Formats: sequence, structure tokens, C-alpha cells
Amino acid sequence: MMKIVNLDHISASPLLAEVKDSMIEAVRQDYHNPSSQHQAGEQAAEALQRARTSVAQLVNAALPKEIVFTSGGTESVNHAVKGVALANAARGNHIITSNIEHNAVNRSLRRLQSAGFKVTSLSVDSTGRVDPADVADAITDQTILVSIMHSNNETGTLQPIEEIAKITRGKKVIFHSDAVDSVGIMPVDVQKLGVDLLSFGSNTFYGPAGVGGLYVRRGTRVFPLLDGGVQENNKRAGAENLIGIIGMGTAAEIAVQGMDARVAHLRRLKDKLLAELPDYIDEYIINTHPRYSLPNLVSLSIKYIEGESVLLMLDDEGFLVSTRSACATGSLRASHVLLSLGLSHADAQGTLVLSFGIDNTAQDVTAFLTALKNVVTTLRDISPLYKKATAQN
Amino acid sequence: MMKIVNLDHISASPLLAEVKDSMIEAVRQDYHNPSSQHQAGEQAAEALQRARTSVAQLVNAALPKEIVFTSGGTESVNHAVKGVALANAARGNHIITSNIEHNAVNRSLRRLQSAGFKVTSLSVDSTGRVDPADVADAITDQTILVSIMHSNNETGTLQPIEEIAKITRGKKVIFHSDAVDSVGIMPVDVQKLGVDLLSFGSNTFYGPAGVGGLYVRRGTRVFPLLDGGVQENNKRAGAENLIGIIGMGTAAEIAVQGMDARVAHLRRLKDKLLAELPDYIDEYIINTHPRYSLPNLVSLSIKYIEGESVLLMLDDEGFLVSTRSACATGSLRASHVLLSLGLSHADAQGTLVLSFGIDNTAQDVTAFLTALKNVVTTLRDISPLYKKATAQN
Repeated sequence: MMKIVNLDHISASPLLAEVKDSMIEAVRQDYHNPSSQHQAGEQAAEALQRARTSVAQLVNAALPKEIVFTSGGTESVNHAVKGVALANAARGNHIITSNIEHNAVNRSLRRLQSAGFKVTSLSVDSTGRVDPADVADAITDQTILVSIMHSNNETGTLQPIEEIAKITRGKKVIFHSDAVDSVGIMPVDVQKLGVDLLSFGSNTFYGPAGVGGLYVRRGTRVFPLLDGGVQENNKRAGAENLIGIIGMGTAAEIAVQGMDARVAHLRRLKDKLLAELPDYIDEYIINTHPRYSLPNLVSLSIKYIEGESVLLMLDDEGFLVSTRSACATGSLRASHVLLSLGLSHADAQGTLVLSFGIDNTAQDVTAFLTALKNVVTTLRDISPLYKKATAQN
Repeated sequence: MMKIVNLDHISASPLLAEVKDSMIEAVRQDYHNPSSQHQAGEQAAEALQRARTSVAQLVNAALPKEIVFTSGGTESVNHAVKGVALANAARGNHIITSNIEHNAVNRSLRRLQSAGFKVTSLSVDSTGRVDPADVADAITDQTILVSIMHSNNETGTLQPIEEIAKITRGKKVIFHSDAVDSVGIMPVDVQKLGVDLLSFGSNTFYGPAGVGGLYVRRGTRVFPLLDGGVQENNKRAGAENLIGIIGMGTAAEIAVQGMDARVAHLRRLKDKLLAELPDYIDEYIINTHPRYSLPNLVSLSIKYIEGESVLLMLDDEGFLVSTRSACATGSLRASHVLLSLGLSHADAQGTLVLSFGIDNTAQDVTAFLTALKNVVTTLRDISPLYKKATAQN
């Protein structure tokens, strides 16, 4: 079988061996319902609490009960954005966000707009960053929520969250940050950042997909998204996905222990890719911020060709890459994130999102660059855009 | 170690051996993201589709794509109730339900009431059933949704869903049924029932907790509860809990194959319990309908004692029982379901919910009855209520 090299960790990361072991153990254990009053229920409740404590440590929450387990980053974001808006509607109806948020934020806000909320969406500069001063300017006496992502899922660019939090705290506005692609990849400390809510997902740090967390600072007014029972300290109803949560807890523990080594490893791979790329292809744009960006992600727009063709040809060679968020598959429009950076439609179409994981090696980078060179050469040979451009030179 | 006898399947059922195997295999498989465009993504998408087909068969949906995978019965109910209300708000603002629904329905409706929707909650008769004629009478030209549960989670009593569906269809009102405690326990056929939406959970049929499904008849107007990506045919955003979904798919396949034997086994245990109960204790009320009820559930109110004391003493003997829905733990109020049946507060406090599973045996029933007799005798010996009542006789 061909070796598969996953350079699409933003879509899916492999489970850590320890996560697999803990989930298999949990499957075999047949836990009862953590809400049941008998001893079997208590054992399940203890396993749930252990996982909560591990996840709280990963984001440095002051209290384990500030962590709400969810079915993933998307639910966390929906819970935060809709829950804060509806719980604070008596105070105001204005929400501030940015032009480059994930669709989980965008579409949650669109839903709120049709219910009468007003949304200000801030532009980013050509490097993809929000200016904190713009947040300050946009706040009115009606503003109840600011939602700005921690890192962008298509470019990896980091936002000035700490600076924005200082502003929102001063104005007593609730601040949520979508950190789905950051938590577990780099240190994220909710107390240092000063956010009130933070969304994250387990698979980013090699836990199972379909499990996530929402940090809710104690005292923050937010309604549940799932109404019903009193689980999760009355913040999220429904029987827990305990097997997945246990896997997430294990993944969180290991992420805490290995964070420094993990960041260093990812950064080495990314630096190698960026340093050697000019030796393999020309005429491309790097959309990722040179300094403020995730250690594992590179967004690369290759001129004169289609990212989707590159993806499919690389797939045949065993390299998994992405052209954009996996959540956006099926949508044909060019990425709103790349257009917001000022990229042309043509350049946006030629974009690859490369995201490394701890399972990648330096050899993977070299093998990828070699394969990429072949694919780009083949595609440009048949590209009318490329012929036209080279004829002009 | 003491043998544990689970008579609290309504709170948690053990995983089938085949479910464990398929989940462990899925953990080891390290599936990629089903939305990714490369071959690794396609393999994940195929596994997802297989599970969807199995689950569609379990409820006899006409098409697999009428099944939306969720994080459990509570999410399914929230999605159905809130999603239908918001998507059809232009047509009307009136919703009909019953007095004995699960809190997932009740609290979702309360949330909608604060957004301006009007709710009519129908009474049940002393056997716990809704009269379909009451549904017909309650429908106005503003009615957009009827939500009546398939079986009650505390009493096991079944509602006349088919008759209600005939009425809602005639009036072009959308009909949702919460079948979380029915699907997998007894045959549930969405086409025969005539419902437009049906909520269910995987653990009821020995799949993992924290995974569920929502049947949405093709053409039914419903908004997503989780906005974001285009997963689940654009009905539910977010990366899938594929490991859990694969377990649910396996559980569904086996439920379809073994349904007749399963129902017969559960009914034998329930009949044995009801037939022999008078030989062990006296002065109790059976809250479960003698004919229209789940094959696996008995609600038993034992006079002059507290259900919670019975639960804890039985727990010490290795018998897991419930006093009410596990979701309601932490709430001190008497069950709204039992009060709706006309039970006194005192009798409601003495209630045990016993729910059998395919892992129970006839010997379990006999052992339980023996233990129950001892516990009831002990508790009545120290009960002032019991002394007073027996002194009067």
C-alpha cells in the first residue's frame, strides 16, 4: 500500500495511541449514565470529571466547571454566539465580528440577524489581521458580544485577542473567540487572553472528532443551545458522549505535557517548507502571516492553476491536502477569507491549505515538495492562463 | 465483585459486543474527515453512509438522507422543535404539545415562548394518554407544529401517534414525535406512523450514548440547530462523531434483525415482574398502561416510602434502578409526569422506574423482587406515614 502523508490535519488529525487506548478501554468499560444516582452512575460521573479537569488545564481555566463538553467546535461556537446573544438581548442587540470568521460564526450570526440582531463585521488588513482599534470604534451602548477568532482556519493567521479583550473588558462587552484550530496546537490560556468564552475541538489535539469544549468564564450570561436536562452544570442538556469525552481528556493531558516539543516540531516543518518552496515552484503567494500564525499551517496560492486539480493529483501520489475548510466542501464560491485578504478570484482558486501534525517528518516535507513540483509543472503545461502570462514576459 | 443487575436501561444500556467491536475497529482505523475531497475523506464518507442506511432501515425512512445524525436524543428534540418553529414562523406561531413531555421538549418550548411563540399543552387521562380529539380541537390557523412523544420516559405509556398524525396531515401541520425511549425497543416505522420528524437516541438500542438521530421527512421545513458547514445534507453543521455513528449503525442493524425476539424477551420479563409483584409487596400503584406501553418499562409507586431511599438500598444489593429520568437528577420537584397522571405528591415520591434490557434474565426479576421486599419492609418499619396508615386499618 502507498504511504499516505497527511498534510491536511486541519480537516482531520490521527488519534494519539494513548487516546485510542483510553477510548477502547472506555468502550469495554460500559459506563452507566453520569447523572444516575447509583454507584454505577457515580463511576461514570468520576470519569467525566477527570476529563473535565484535564481539558480545563489545557486552556488554563480557573475551574473545571467552566468547561462545557459539546459535540465539537461547531456546537461550541453556536452555543457561545447564539447563547450570549439571546441571554443578553435585554441589554442590547449589537454584535461585532470579523470578515474572516468560520461559517459556524457567520451562519450563527446570520440566524441572529433574522431575529433582529445587528452585526458589524470588521475588515482585516492585507495580512489578515483585525485592528483592535476598529473593535473599540465599533462598540456602541447596544453592543453585547464581540466574536473574533483566535486563528483563521484557512490562513493560520492569529488575531490580537489579548488586545481586543482589554477593550471588551473595559466596555463590559462579552468576548468570545473561536479557537478551534489553535487549542492543542499552541499554548492557549483563557486567563492570559482575557476572553469570556472560547470554543475548541478535540481532534485538533489528536482526540476524537465530534467532541469539543466551550470555556465559559464563571458569571458569563449565556443560554444553553441544547435545552432539557441539567447536565454540564445546567449549561448543556443531553446524555454525554462519555467515550469521546474520555478520549478528549487523554488528548488534553498529553497536549499539556508535550506542548513545547509539539510547537517546536511543527514550526521546524513549516519553516522548512517555506524556506525550500522557492527551490521547487515559482509564482505563488503565501497567505499566512510571517509572524502571527499557527505553527502548523501554510496557505499557499499557486498562480495559474486550480487548487482542486492540485489536490486530486497529489491525492494520487498519497499526499492529503486541502483547498479550504473541509466544512465548505460542496460550496463552489471562492473563499470569503482569501477574498477578504485582497486576493483575486483566480489566485484564490489556486490555493492549498497545508497543515502539519506531530505525525509528519522532515522527509514528508521533501517528498511533498517534489510531488508538488511535478503536479504544478504538469498543470501549468496545460493551463491557458499560464501560457498567456508567460507569453507576456 | 458483587453481580450488578441493571434495571435502569432507560438511563444507560450496555453496548452490544458487535457495537464494541465496530467502535474499537473505528478507533483503530483513524478515519479522515468525511467532507474532505481526497480518497481518505471518501473512505470516511462511505462509513458514514453505511451507518446512515442502517439507521434509516431501523425507523423505515424512505431515504437514508432523511436521517440526520446528532449528539443524542436531546439535540434531536431541540433541533426538531426549535428548527420547525423558526423555519415556519411566517406561517404561524402556535405549537401544541402534551403535559408529560421530556424536559428536552418542555424547555425548548419555554425558550420559544420567550421568543413570542404560543404553546398549548394538552392534559393526559389517568392512564397517561393524550386524546387525539384534543389535538384536533387545539389546532388553529396559527398552528405550525404538534410535538407529542411516542413513549413516556417515566411511565412507558405509548401515545396514539398514528391517530394524531392523521389529524395533523389533514390540517397540514408539522408533527414531531420524541421516540427516544421507543426506537430499538419496539418496532417504530415513520411511514406507518405518519410523523414528519422523529427523535431517537442510539443508547436505547445498545449503541453508544451521546449519539442520536433525527428523522426529517423529505420536504419538511426545519432550520439547523447547529449552523456552519454543509454536513448532514446541510441540516447539521460540524465534523461528525464518526466513531459513535459507526457504533450506532451497528446497533441499528442488529436491532432490525433481532427486533421480534427482543420484544418477546422484554415482555416476558415485564409480565413476570407484574404477575409476581403482589407475592412480594402490597400497597403500590402501577403507572404504566396495561396495554399501550413499552415492552421493557414499569413505573411503580410504592406507598409510604421514598423512592430515593429504595434506590440507594437496592444499589447496595447490586440492583440499579431509577426514580425518574436521569436527566432530572438534581431537580428536587416531584415529577411533572406523575402529577399529570393524578398521583399525589407522596405517592409520586415513592416511585421506581424499572427498565429491562436484553441482558436481563428471569432470575434477575426473581432476585430483584426478593431484594425489593426486604428493602420495602425495612423502610416501612421506620416510616411514620406507614405506621399512621396501618394504625387506621
